[in-house]
Amino acid sequence: MKIGLLGFGVVGTGVYDIIVSGTTPELSDIEVKRIISLVVPEGFEHLVTKDINDIVNDDEIELVVEAMGGLHPAYEFVMACIEKGKHVVSSNKHLVSNYFVELHEAAVKNGVQLRFTPSTGGGIPWLSSLKRARRSDEIEELWGIVNGTTNFILDSMLKENTDFDVALREAQRLGYAEADPSADIDGLDTQRKCIISANLAFDAIVKEESVPVFGIRNITHDDVEYFTNNGMVCKLFANAGRNEDGSIYAYVAPVLLDKSSLEAGVDSNYNSITYVGKFVGRSTYMGQGAGKFPTGNSVVQDILDTMFDDATLKREYNSVEVNNSLNLHKYYVRTMGKLEAFLDIVEKEEGNSRYITKPVSIACIKALSEELYKDCPQSFFAQIK
Amino acid sequence: MKIGLLGFGVVGTGVYDIIVSGTTPELSDIEVKRIISLVVPEGFEHLVTKDINDIVNDDEIELVVEAMGGLHPAYEFVMACIEKGKHVVSSNKHLVSNYFVELHEAAVKNGVQLRFTPSTGGGIPWLSSLKRARRSDEIEELWGIVNGTTNFILDSMLKENTDFDVALREAQRLGYAEADPSADIDGLDTQRKCIISANLAFDAIVKEESVPVFGIRNITHDDVEYFTNNGMVCKLFANAGRNEDGSIYAYVAPVLLDKSSLEAGVDSNYNSITYVGKFVGRSTYMGQGAGKFPTGNSVVQDILDTMFDDATLKREYNSVEVNNSLNLHKYYVRTMGKLEAFLDIVEKEEGNSRYITKPVSIACIKALSEELYKDCPQSFFAQIK
Repeated sequence: MKIGLLGFGVVGTGVYDIIVSGTTPELSDIEVKRIISLVVPEGFEHLVTKDINDIVNDDEIELVVEAMGGLHPAYEFVMACIEKGKHVVSSNKHLVSNYFVELHEAAVKNGVQLRFTPSTGGGIPWLSSLKRARRSDEIEELWGIVNGTTNFILDSMLKENTDFDVALREAQRLGYAEADPSADIDGLDTQRKCIISANLAFDAIVKEESVPVFGIRNITHDDVEYFTNNGMVCKLFANAGRNEDGSIYAYVAPVLLDKSSLEAGVDSNYNSITYVGKFVGRSTYMGQGAGKFPTGNSVVQDILDTMFDDATLKREYNSVEVNNSLNLHKYYVRTMGKLEAFLDIVEKEEGNSRYITKPVSIACIKALSEELYKDCPQSFFAQIK
Repeated sequence: MKIGLLGFGVVGTGVYDIIVSGTTPELSDIEVKRIISLVVPEGFEHLVTKDINDIVNDDEIELVVEAMGGLHPAYEFVMACIEKGKHVVSSNKHLVSNYFVELHEAAVKNGVQLRFTPSTGGGIPWLSSLKRARRSDEIEELWGIVNGTTNFILDSMLKENTDFDVALREAQRLGYAEADPSADIDGLDTQRKCIISANLAFDAIVKEESVPVFGIRNITHDDVEYFTNNGMVCKLFANAGRNEDGSIYAYVAPVLLDKSSLEAGVDSNYNSITYVGKFVGRSTYMGQGAGKFPTGNSVVQDILDTMFDDATLKREYNSVEVNNSLNLHKYYVRTMGKLEAFLDIVEKEEGNSRYITKPVSIACIKALSEELYKDCPQSFFAQIK
């Protein structure tokens, strides 16, 4: 199969290198015919073009890999390829979570396959496994660590006994965090992956605005010390599941886990994602959530599935009611904010502006947090599992 | 697709229930036409037969599920079906590890698919993921917990502070361990799963006699207490990998892990298996390693792959040199045995007949253990990771 690469950065070059250097018989059936890139690396002059039409109008190219990132022009490029009957593999969570419906409907209409396993979990075959699971099983809930940058920061703060800023700078030095780390530390990257996972798990169309997010920007050395002294480890989780009434819950929040729990052992920049199936029970996938070769390999696996696998789920995705008010948890809250409605749900004061709440919903704590942030922008919130 | 079930015990009834009660469109394409069973449950008179020829000679049956267990007559039944052009899905690790070559060659010769994901890891899509990974990646090593019974025992000894016999009886009461638990606690079940995994990972034919095994039969409350006091957790691991000279290592042994490591958090009767790929890095799969619905679901997934997936690896499996003398680890040894060759490799005495060795190979410690067991049959050995 001849393919085109849209984007030739970290992921795009990883895909190219695996296809060219890999040794398996399956890989020898894939050929990179064209690459869209603004820079032309030496030796790639015959492959690189800046004009998307060189790919769109090349009927020999049956599949495109979108690894550009961002919403535009990625969306326009991908849609143009779909409309010309080309299969698409995308590693771009921002694109897939924003335009899930549009991309899915265009793919169905044009009879092409749309795959995006690398968009969530990087090198982990999470989305492809979730789709395979859905052939026979019902998903009840899913959760996990889907952002390596924040896991690296939280793990460093715990093990190196450092403060947030030091851990963040180390993550940036190692290339795990961007110069502007907001999408990671404020939980937006996790939110996008939560939405994509929930859509596949529940045949759903989950909207961004219905998924509350708490990030880790405000976590301090003192918070981590308190957690450690109480036998707990803090991780940033994507959470989604089906409520008893059939509605869906979906949210992103730091969680406090018992130190002997599985996810407490997920170190460095690794990811770990779990679903609970009606038949299969708890099923967990762990590995590298990012990086040139892990994510590149995930792209290549999606290409191979497009070539060999006739089992693409034929599903309709439906708008769902998201209801985040049904599941109750206790929360750890550190805040100098004063709010009567908040004091009403406090079960225990732990000193130094720390509180443990009674069991409340994520919707409730989100609403209160917006008020508390006004008084105290440094407030920190974590769910106690 | 019409299928036949060979065996209607825990796994067979799980497969039947999932196919009949499942709600996905994919499941509605599967129909159980015949069941081989010595007992005939009420309501199943029209499906059950005791005569394998009723399945072998029924040309409408395109696939058989072998969930009988044991070597005979499972082997003869499966071979008869393959020779009649029927695909096979087997949950029987004993059969698959013993007759790997014969079954593979017969399947190739007769142009049928042979799948056995449920034989290793129960409900975990470990073998199917390993096969998918091998389409693009090279496996460097694999390890993990593949026996839920021993994990339950080790976890109980740690968390309930009980001795081995108490934990074993509790495992038997809950149906996790057989009346004769030898295959589990002596590591033979783990050895079979180690062989099957290594065969797929390295295109290899690994022979049982080349895979050294240490079990957990002799572990005591005092051992576990010592591990806990030293920040370690004991798990039974299958281990396999490629040595630098191209040969393979493969062995089964209890390992001592740092208490914050991932596998230390694998609780109860769960399994957790990891491979390291050249491209993808560490990739871990965790879930229910046994049970009616988890394993039944794994069978059903293999049936769906047979129906929809054209990507069965076309691989030749080759006899390989197994060399267990190249990787060196320290070992924890508790023994009253006296042996000069053993004292030569001791680095540290820890009191109460406990020793920590210098780094030695599994081949070396296996050879010494056979002498030490003669003096002291209660000796216990664990690799320090």
